[in-house]
Amino acid sequence: MNYILKNENAIYYECGYSCDNALYIKLGAEAFFLTDSRYKIEAEQRVVGAEVIIERDLYKTANRILKKSKVKRLNYDSKEWSIFAFEKLTDKLKIKLKPKPDFSHKKRIIKSFEEIETLTIASQLGAEAFDFFADMIRRDGFNRDEYSLTYMAKTALSGYGKYELSFDPIVAVNANASKPHAMPTANILQKKDLLLVDAGLKYKRYCSDRTRTVYANKNFSFDIEQKFKSKKIQKAYDTVLKAHDNAIEKARTGMKAKEVDALTRDIIDKAGFGKYFVHSTGHGVGLDIHEMPYISSKSNTVIEDGMVYTIEPGIYIPDEFGIRIEDMVAMIDGRAVKI
Amino acid sequence: MNYILKNENAIYYECGYSCDNALYIKLGAEAFFLTDSRYKIEAEQRVVGAEVIIERDLYKTANRILKKSKVKRLNYDSKEWSIFAFEKLTDKLKIKLKPKPDFSHKKRIIKSFEEIETLTIASQLGAEAFDFFADMIRRDGFNRDEYSLTYMAKTALSGYGKYELSFDPIVAVNANASKPHAMPTANILQKKDLLLVDAGLKYKRYCSDRTRTVYANKNFSFDIEQKFKSKKIQKAYDTVLKAHDNAIEKARTGMKAKEVDALTRDIIDKAGFGKYFVHSTGHGVGLDIHEMPYISSKSNTVIEDGMVYTIEPGIYIPDEFGIRIEDMVAMIDGRAVKI
Repeated sequence: MNYILKNENAIYYECGYSCDNALYIKLGAEAFFLTDSRYKIEAEQRVVGAEVIIERDLYKTANRILKKSKVKRLNYDSKEWSIFAFEKLTDKLKIKLKPKPDFSHKKRIIKSFEEIETLTIASQLGAEAFDFFADMIRRDGFNRDEYSLTYMAKTALSGYGKYELSFDPIVAVNANASKPHAMPTANILQKKDLLLVDAGLKYKRYCSDRTRTVYANKNFSFDIEQKFKSKKIQKAYDTVLKAHDNAIEKARTGMKAKEVDALTRDIIDKAGFGKYFVHSTGHGVGLDIHEMPYISSKSNTVIEDGMVYTIEPGIYIPDEFGIRIEDMVAMIDGRAVKI
Repeated sequence: MNYILKNENAIYYECGYSCDNALYIKLGAEAFFLTDSRYKIEAEQRVVGAEVIIERDLYKTANRILKKSKVKRLNYDSKEWSIFAFEKLTDKLKIKLKPKPDFSHKKRIIKSFEEIETLTIASQLGAEAFDFFADMIRRDGFNRDEYSLTYMAKTALSGYGKYELSFDPIVAVNANASKPHAMPTANILQKKDLLLVDAGLKYKRYCSDRTRTVYANKNFSFDIEQKFKSKKIQKAYDTVLKAHDNAIEKARTGMKAKEVDALTRDIIDKAGFGKYFVHSTGHGVGLDIHEMPYISSKSNTVIEDGMVYTIEPGIYIPDEFGIRIEDMVAMIDGRAVKI
């Protein structure tokens, strides 16, 4: 099959190296890695199985390579290509171009054994970083605002810069946690507050992703067992935890993704919090933080061994509080294994 | 004029708020800001001059709004839109769509007085952060590797998380500095090494950008005057500095960008280092770290008052060392003023 890739992680998956200005072209047995002079040295050292070509205008160069080749059809991901770039790529080209949205994500939906191993290490490092972050907060985090706490989370998750982050951590106190995608505010963390942390790091380019919601007393930890003073919060927390555990326990290969979603959603619905669970149960994780499969109420994707995804039910009561508990699972021998 | 925008900063420029999943539609006197439920609270508080619409599928919603409207033409930026998203947006739409590459960047090429003020503060905060980073290195940075130093740079530039960064800082020692876009390595910084730092922070979403190359003895600073032990390095450094100063001194409104580029390039050429200056002289800076105008040898853009851009000549001797000196200038009353 012939194809062209533009996304950094899609390209990394093909040849073991990538950068923020690259194209990858696969034409039968031949492959080309195109980048500019800034990346020449690294690309020549690290690209595996493709000829490295250094040029200023990558689209023109790709156009030239395609014109010279004898291929008749070329697949491309219509989500990767802007209309502008695609016009340059295809200028006077006589090849039949076939749009394949999510081409690379579809290839990557089943992880290899090595990838699951790498993701497991990423997830374990992520969990250790949460413990380290708890230490930091107990020592010096109370009476700080969410901006400062977010920076501490970056410090903890990155191990003082050793690891890249999967995304900007979410650190939200009390009512701010009711926004599933909260941005930091001047809210101060005080003892006995509710604290939600959603964060991940990258190990060998693979992402971890984890959320904990805790009662931040002076000896708190990010353990999954939490006791809140408020009965309402505790009821919501117990419901989310039950939903989370239920999905991990009962997810099986052969199920549709929407059936896995129902494993969390039904429990939250029955407890009367249904309208406060405003997002999907989870998403695949790999080189990208959001990959296939999507564990949503609409997805008919069939769950298979080798898939790695998050289970992250939540309950968000506007202006009051939000709760989310998230872990990563890998489908192994038919079941979901927490990694 | 009617237009639709998709880029986060392009949208912020229109209505004072943005997020990572938004569309902005301007139809004559009407304007719409589309986002999903995660951003409802912030959007309703902060968007100015546009109706906030919360929906799950933004493309479908935009398509519906456009179908209902009576407009006949709509401008869009063909660099912003993927083929996939554009097909959803324009499904069965009878409006004439006009591609306008760099639509927002073109609007933003001349900065307002307020924007120049904000960029000046960003740049000054960036310069102070360099001084703070120098303190950190003198105290505890020698014998650390580039990974660790990069993290220290992030700490210094962000003011312990107070500011977002314009981009991941480049911190490169000796030969690694010969890559204009160096990634950190296990290289250790030792006394008397060459150290290149390229970093910036965001103040009110506007970017700063600055590069210094220094002789890292125990009392070093990021001052622009530097003395190296190696004559070859010193010659290259003096050449880059002369090129940098020449461009800032002689840039005038009415010149073409390529003439400003020549103000650095000619000096480097004449000193015999021409083939080692492998990039353009500079780029515009604003909400994005790379904006118009591009100060390259091919650009016919006419320089005008209100433009803000970098002057950053460099010399890169492969496997030996690299030198770059970068400052931001604003065109004010016909001349380039260092900000």
